[in-house]
Amino acid sequence: MAVSNIRYGVGVTKEVGMDLQNMGAKNVCLMTDMNLSQLPPVQVVMDSLVKNDVPFKVYDNVRVEPTDTSFMEAIEFAKKGAFDAYVAVGGGSTIDTCKAANLYASSPHSDFLDYVNAPIGKGKPVSVPLKPLIAVPTTSGTGSETTGVAIFDYECLKVKTGIASRAIKPTLGLVDPLHTLHMPPRVVANSGFDVLCHALESYTAIPYHMRSPCPSNPITRPAYQGSNPISDIWAVHALRIVAKYLKRAVRNPDDLEARSHMHLASAFAGIGFGNAGVHLCHGMSYPISGLVKKYKAKDYNVDHPLVPHGLSVVLTSPAVFTFTAQMFPERHLETAEILGADTRTARIQDAGPVLADTLRKFLFDLDVDDGLAAVGYSKADIPALVRGTLPQERVTKLAPRPQSEEDLSALFEASMKLY
Amino acid sequence: MAVSNIRYGVGVTKEVGMDLQNMGAKNVCLMTDMNLSQLPPVQVVMDSLVKNDVPFKVYDNVRVEPTDTSFMEAIEFAKKGAFDAYVAVGGGSTIDTCKAANLYASSPHSDFLDYVNAPIGKGKPVSVPLKPLIAVPTTSGTGSETTGVAIFDYECLKVKTGIASRAIKPTLGLVDPLHTLHMPPRVVANSGFDVLCHALESYTAIPYHMRSPCPSNPITRPAYQGSNPISDIWAVHALRIVAKYLKRAVRNPDDLEARSHMHLASAFAGIGFGNAGVHLCHGMSYPISGLVKKYKAKDYNVDHPLVPHGLSVVLTSPAVFTFTAQMFPERHLETAEILGADTRTARIQDAGPVLADTLRKFLFDLDVDDGLAAVGYSKADIPALVRGTLPQERVTKLAPRPQSEEDLSALFEASMKLY
Ligand SMILES: NC(=O)c1ccc[n+]([C@@H]2O[C@H](COP(=O)([O-])OP(=O)(O)OC[C@H]3O[C@@H](n4cnc5c(N)ncnc54)[C@H](O)[C@@H]3O)[C@@H](O)[C@H]2O)c1
Ligand SMILES: NC(=O)c1ccc[n+]([C@@H]2O[C@H](COP(=O)([O-])OP(=O)(O)OC[C@H]3O[C@@H](n4cnc5c(N)ncnc54)[C@H](O)[C@@H]3O)[C@@H](O)[C@H]2O)c1
Ligand SMILES: [Fe+2]
Ligand SMILES: [Fe+2]
Repeated sequence: MAVSNIRYGVGVTKEVGMDLQNMGAKNVCLMTDMNLSQLPPVQVVMDSLVKNDVPFKVYDNVRVEPTDTSFMEAIEFAKKGAFDAYVAVGGGSTIDTCKAANLYASSPHSDFLDYVNAPIGKGKPVSVPLKPLIAVPTTSGTGSETTGVAIFDYECLKVKTGIASRAIKPTLGLVDPLHTLHMPPRVVANSGFDVLCHALESYTAIPYHMRSPCPSNPITRPAYQGSNPISDIWAVHALRIVAKYLKRAVRNPDDLEARSHMHLASAFAGIGFGNAGVHLCHGMSYPISGLVKKYKAKDYNVDHPLVPHGLSVVLTSPAVFTFTAQMFPERHLETAEILGADTRTARIQDAGPVLADTLRKFLFDLDVDDGLAAVGYSKADIPALVRGTLPQERVTKLAPRPQSEEDLSALFEASMKLY
Repeated sequence: MAVSNIRYGVGVTKEVGMDLQNMGAKNVCLMTDMNLSQLPPVQVVMDSLVKNDVPFKVYDNVRVEPTDTSFMEAIEFAKKGAFDAYVAVGGGSTIDTCKAANLYASSPHSDFLDYVNAPIGKGKPVSVPLKPLIAVPTTSGTGSETTGVAIFDYECLKVKTGIASRAIKPTLGLVDPLHTLHMPPRVVANSGFDVLCHALESYTAIPYHMRSPCPSNPITRPAYQGSNPISDIWAVHALRIVAKYLKRAVRNPDDLEARSHMHLASAFAGIGFGNAGVHLCHGMSYPISGLVKKYKAKDYNVDHPLVPHGLSVVLTSPAVFTFTAQMFPERHLETAEILGADTRTARIQDAGPVLADTLRKFLFDLDVDDGLAAVGYSKADIPALVRGTLPQERVTKLAPRPQSEEDLSALFEASMKLY
């Protein structure tokens, strides 16, 4: 269990220049996306760098939901810049891109696929030293400031995959609730669903002592270890916050209290799933975003079709937890109760449907699109969606129940319509 | 909120040889105390080192509740040995001694007082690199496997003080419940009280945003930052475990479930107070142990008088929390409830007495000595106890209420008898 280094508080971002100065940074790469580059979070960071005489260059060409191509472009920038430190200001897209840029600029002779998760990439362990990276999250979702994971869309296969190594975990996360005030409602909602699923999936993942094969040497133990007593605490706590504050945070841009809590919940759930792992909602989401056709996400200021990550994970959640509840029904009931269900008279064998109904109501209340059909998929796409899930073994094998191809088909089919 | 790397599970200690081999260690220092050197936890570690061909030397002369002299002796051993890694197998006494040995062997030209907390020492920041240290706790108390703190008794002043730096935090803690089965009952009880006070004090410490002066540069921020939303989670969770399992763990040596939970609670509370800090029970405990006269602690296999650390912190807890409850009465009531009090009809202004009564009952049920009088102190000792508390500013200033010398006198006096 590795806990991450985060500093939380209103206004902590103003210190970033001092932090970099303390690290002796003389040539910093500031990464962000085009949209954020016009907004206060980036301005606050630049002001702090200037005030502390820290020289920096800006890369603002991060792609929202990055691809191998967009990663590579950022890597090129990083290689040319020969930076001695990085600051990522943005959502998961920015932080993940910055992790990849730091990694490959520190390992300039590696092939891009060297560090990408097997079976798509070679999944080599990272042994080169990286530069310090300070992550300043502006969404309340991925928890990427706490994890050693960087996700991208591998275009030729039309499927998301990633890089997973403790080595790319940010040196420091500055979790500053002020940045959340600028998020548009659907970004709050979708990134909040990511927190919801990180918490639910890590809490229901296979327990660490039931994972097999048991690695014979601790060094080969994966970052995702299965649910365990420490990640459980983070997951349950994050879930309570989602239950209490997500709706308020979506509906009221000025509700600093609700948005602050969600910002912290995002880091908490990140620490939880960063150690325990996620499973089916995430594994199935990668083809859902990768195969996107024409769906345009509301409130996302981007020029390409996009099923935002949080939406792509949450749409299958009612079907997924109905399926997995057979294994640890008590935990499924417990999470339903945290999310507001009255479980006093529920039977343990109904844990799955009870949690699924609770999730459907939660999504309906937050105006979520009615299932995969509403984001552009039909029955004819199911074989491709299943094919895109199969290589996501790294996460799907953490589900408490193994899945056949037929199971996956059925889960996609059950997710076409929600209400 | 900083990183603590722990691995939890029945039998994880058996992997320690592999971990050291993975680190490339070729000359390991195994530290423990004389008593433990005859017991299974040390045997398991030695077997694993032998099996993995990791060369090592044993230092088993750790003093239970170390002093500057005993630290220095361990440091000499470490300097001569030129070790490339350390394994500490034992309670806080062993882990703390090993941290100091690693630090000064890595900084051979430093004076002993250089890194000791001001005002007793110079409190210099650590800038030398240390060797990896794996901590294997065998008590369920200090959480020293998760913290950057090493406590010792400074003999010429007859007061405990310590070294506090993130640099001395163990590289890895192996939290293996099997070791707890060997602890005699009073060691379980006293080290459990340490967990209790770590949790209560860090939860009631001054909130991080009310601490003053606010450091102008994040690098000068102390390790102990005041209570904060992250340390709160650890503290409350540890407290719940203490409430549920400590009595069982003390009474039944074979209750692996209870002892396992307490072992994890010790690490949780350590992560909590390692970031938030402790306050008055700890600040006042240092002269209580330092000035010990003839008290012999039951179940402690040592040849010197000793008020064990956990006992020295818990004896003042009813008085301390009566005093501090004026500031955050809700939190004090909440902890009383977690510890079993019926608070439904309690008035908020009675939070202090309610928590104090709950603590008194808890201690009585566990056969704890009846106050400072029972461990050898009388009214005449109070001025010396107060004098020994004054230099403990590093922690006492984290109390939610400032204390005058008269306040401290009154707290010691109120702690002479408990029941
Ligand atoms: N690394 C991990 O551990 C991890 C975990 C989950 C998801 N992810 C990945 O993260 C990506 C999604 O990241 P995300 O959900 O944080 O969103 P994002 O980074 O993709 O940003 C979404 C949109 O919101 C805008 N935005 C972000 N913050 C804003 C603010 N404060 N004010 C106004 N606009 C703002 C961005 O400019 C962008 O248009 C996906 O690629 C996903 O796969 C990574
Ligand atoms: N570094 C920190 O963060 C921190 C925090 C709190 C306290 N401390 C310090 O730690 C010390 C106290 O440590 P402790 O309470 O862990 O106890 P300890 O290390 O002093 O050990 C107490 C006794 O129990 C015996 N023992 C330990 N484990 C055993 C086992 N499994 N089976 C049988 N016997 C066992 C020891 O041999 C010893 O005789 C004090 O010096 C205190 O000031 C440090
Ligand atoms: Fe996610
Ligand atoms: Fe302690």
